Amino acid sequence: MRHFLTTEDWSRGELQALLDRARALKAGASSNALAGKSIALVFFNPSLRTRSSFDIGATQLGGHAIVLDAKGATWPMEFADGAVMDGDEEEHVREAARVLSRYVDLIAIRCFPKFQNWTEEKKDPLISAFAAHATVPVINMETIVHPCQELALMLALQEKMGNVRGKEFLLTWVPHPRPLNTAVANSAILIASKFGMNVRMLIPDEVYRLDDRYMGAAERYCAEAGSRFTVTTDVEAAYSGADAVYAKSWGALPFYGKWEGEAPYRAKGRDFMITPDKMAMTNNGVVSHCLPMRRNVKIADAVVDSPAFLGIEEAENRLHVQKAMMEALALQGGH
Amino acid sequence: MRHFLTTEDWSRGELQALLDRARALKAGASSNALAGKSIALVFFNPSLRTRSSFDIGATQLGGHAIVLDAKGATWPMEFADGAVMDGDEEEHVREAARVLSRYVDLIAIRCFPKFQNWTEEKKDPLISAFAAHATVPVINMETIVHPCQELALMLALQEKMGNVRGKEFLLTWVPHPRPLNTAVANSAILIASKFGMNVRMLIPDEVYRLDDRYMGAAERYCAEAGSRFTVTTDVEAAYSGADAVYAKSWGALPFYGKWEGEAPYRAKGRDFMITPDKMAMTNNGVVSHCLPMRRNVKIADAVVDSPAFLGIEEAENRLHVQKAMMEALALQGGH
Amino acid sequence: MRHFLTTEDWSRGELQALLDRARALKAGASSNALAGKSIALVFFNPSLRTRSSFDIGATQLGGHAIVLDAKGATWPMEFADGAVMDGDEEEHVREAARVLSRYVDLIAIRCFPKFQNWTEEKKDPLISAFAAHATVPVINMETIVHPCQELALMLALQEKMGNVRGKEFLLTWVPHPRPLNTAVANSAILIASKFGMNVRMLIPDEVYRLDDRYMGAAERYCAEAGSRFTVTTDVEAAYSGADAVYAKSWGALPFYGKWEGEAPYRAKGRDFMITPDKMAMTNNGVVSHCLPMRRNVKIADAVVDSPAFLGIEEAENRLHVQKAMMEALALQGGH
Repeated sequence: MRHFLTTEDWSRGELQALLDRARALKAGASSNALAGKSIALVFFNPSLRTRSSFDIGATQLGGHAIVLDAKGATWPMEFADGAVMDGDEEEHVREAARVLSRYVDLIAIRCFPKFQNWTEEKKDPLISAFAAHATVPVINMETIVHPCQELALMLALQEKMGNVRGKEFLLTWVPHPRPLNTAVANSAILIASKFGMNVRMLIPDEVYRLDDRYMGAAERYCAEAGSRFTVTTDVEAAYSGADAVYAKSWGALPFYGKWEGEAPYRAKGRDFMITPDKMAMTNNGVVSHCLPMRRNVKIADAVVDSPAFLGIEEAENRLHVQKAMMEALALQGGH
Repeated sequence: MRHFLTTEDWSRGELQALLDRARALKAGASSNALAGKSIALVFFNPSLRTRSSFDIGATQLGGHAIVLDAKGATWPMEFADGAVMDGDEEEHVREAARVLSRYVDLIAIRCFPKFQNWTEEKKDPLISAFAAHATVPVINMETIVHPCQELALMLALQEKMGNVRGKEFLLTWVPHPRPLNTAVANSAILIASKFGMNVRMLIPDEVYRLDDRYMGAAERYCAEAGSRFTVTTDVEAAYSGADAVYAKSWGALPFYGKWEGEAPYRAKGRDFMITPDKMAMTNNGVVSHCLPMRRNVKIADAVVDSPAFLGIEEAENRLHVQKAMMEALALQGGH
Repeated sequence: MRHFLTTEDWSRGELQALLDRARALKAGASSNALAGKSIALVFFNPSLRTRSSFDIGATQLGGHAIVLDAKGATWPMEFADGAVMDGDEEEHVREAARVLSRYVDLIAIRCFPKFQNWTEEKKDPLISAFAAHATVPVINMETIVHPCQELALMLALQEKMGNVRGKEFLLTWVPHPRPLNTAVANSAILIASKFGMNVRMLIPDEVYRLDDRYMGAAERYCAEAGSRFTVTTDVEAAYSGADAVYAKSWGALPFYGKWEGEAPYRAKGRDFMITPDKMAMTNNGVVSHCLPMRRNVKIADAVVDSPAFLGIEEAENRLHVQKAMMEALALQGGH
């Protein structure tokens, strides 16, 4: 039984098959793959787009979604083996995963890191425990990666430019008032490199390098495809000749959970907003961002409201790629 | 493409057609108008009755509703063009409206005013921005008017008294511990005047006059129908010969957001609760209130529990009028 | 019209019929008993398992569930007749129950006691008011009893041991950091005694005796069945020869809402966690707990992870017994 926890576990061919199926579903193909089935959408963090697109997608496949919402910022659930549960946690993942598996056919989970201890949190312990104990497939709705967003982005790029192999993909850090999760940044370089793009990362300072797990995977995927993976702090070098620009803000890992010290490094990126001037340096490039997005902080209005902006298409694609993925997981094993 | 933002945008004939269809649906007519379609119910403020009736109504029409709930008192969403989004707002309506339009076929929104600046808030900026940027019909689930409640009230009145033209409709201010939104009061005079009733407003003091937009519209509708629109602070004059009494409490606009100064005016209405004595002055009148309703503060038990009380019928009618309205919006344009 | 408020209102034969139907549904029988019907799930307290299992169950029966969630710890709803509603309560149950009855075919309610005044709260006033004013069947999703959990437990016991009559059932108090509601403890002795088991209660001190209403009912049911009801503070006597052990923690009623004084009595139970040593004294007994459950506080890992643990089966059974019960209530009166 396969889960959908990270695209690292799926080959490019398998992912392309999901994208092709998503494109067919977007074009109007119908599917009853979830008839009589249900999916639990478990949110340890809030969501609008993700819950909407999963709920509607499951319904369009003939199934039924239930939404389980954490009330606070984090939902106290224990995942460590052998824990003496005399603290805030009322339930162990061992029970939650097994019981939900009796009720539903798929379990999807959103659980952001807590910004406390990256060494532990980079293991993605909660969703890993769910996958270990559930007896139905588990889907990642964003933890320290965001694989559904990856598929939506890649579908938008393929719709615009066909085969992306050898195209220049720029992930640029952009300003934001607060340090954010690295999940979408990790995911952007994973998927672009996996599909053979030349990947550039523009960051204000070396402290914004992503975790070695993702930097290493992107380098490896690029090497396998014969493409380049580069990191720069030079805006002009980054934008020159780019075919696709992807914006994301994140907090620097050396200051993880102790963000005070990050301020001077963050200040170096104060002019990193995507503007028409920067876009003019690209190869008539497209630009996108997962939503929500702060206008005139991350990307200027004139760019968002130009034909180059793919963010709405990418957001729509969430619906179609998730339907393709739920279908694939529900149908595995010859059911 | 038409929205349902305020009954001011719909003619009396169009509204009567919705009411006639609602009556048929209430009598058991079935409809599959939302088969394969979905509606997003977006709540910036809490709701029980509205979400229940929209969700069940959409399901009864063969469709699917998703509920998107703001967690706090207000959901930080920017609506101003050109805003530099470096504050609390994470998303602009331009993106939210366009993305939701890709997922669903109808968008319904509840967004109360914030009691900060009536000059701005009377423009109903958030739902107006949604309607401007959405590519599917937008429905008002209460902002500064409550058009669904209007239809439910009018259907209850027509069920009880047939043609309401020329009947005496009294909107009476009633006590409440806190200053409330004027939406239902605005709506009550809009719909009663539009259907040709003689409209009386009973208020404790002139400071409780509603905004000129609604007072003016009601006067105009009455003039067109040949009926009267009057405002009084005299309880006996207001109740004498009334055919229908409608209760609502609201805060006085001159003290909008700075409610301390309103106290002495509010005190003048301390005896405005609807009692059997007051009802005895009417023309064997009916009485109603949108729910929730504080018993023995706004309306005395003996009135609520009498056959004259239409509040439960009015609440039930929410289901039927909303089904008629969703059906009309979903089917427009020959789909 | 019958409600499902407490198993005390249903005969053993009627409950057995529900269990038999649940078993058939679990084995794959299909039912369309809720086709075109809907159920409102009203939560004054949070829930994951209950809302999941009711929502999925209703869907599997062809119906539709809507979830109405209290935002805070308690939802301000008035239930007293004649109340002057000038406090926090915005709505009276008289209106809420009647309006919901116009929208849906079944109303299910979760409302825990507030730990303020047991003399009042033991009357279960809110759900009683709902049942009095609703015009559709009302279902208890846990108040001061938890009848759905009772059925799920009894089904798990019958699946494991066939006829439970004359078997030894032990309800043991177990440690927990906080004083909890007595609902599941009340329910455990009600259902075990009703089905003719010999019921033992193990408590750290006499102050942990449950309310006379439930102790008396259990004694009466045991007397009718010719079985024994005993209360002990002796761990060895309690466990020796037990066929089924059920764990629950609760606060001592003499300290209801003023829990400071309970501490010394609570301390007497500090070694009451269910361990392999204790289970070794039983008659190869099974063990269960309603979820969520704190591992290594209430029950040791080695017990939870042994084949004797029925908690996952019991949790799964919630789905099936609730489907049987919704079906029975929806079909009553020849609909």
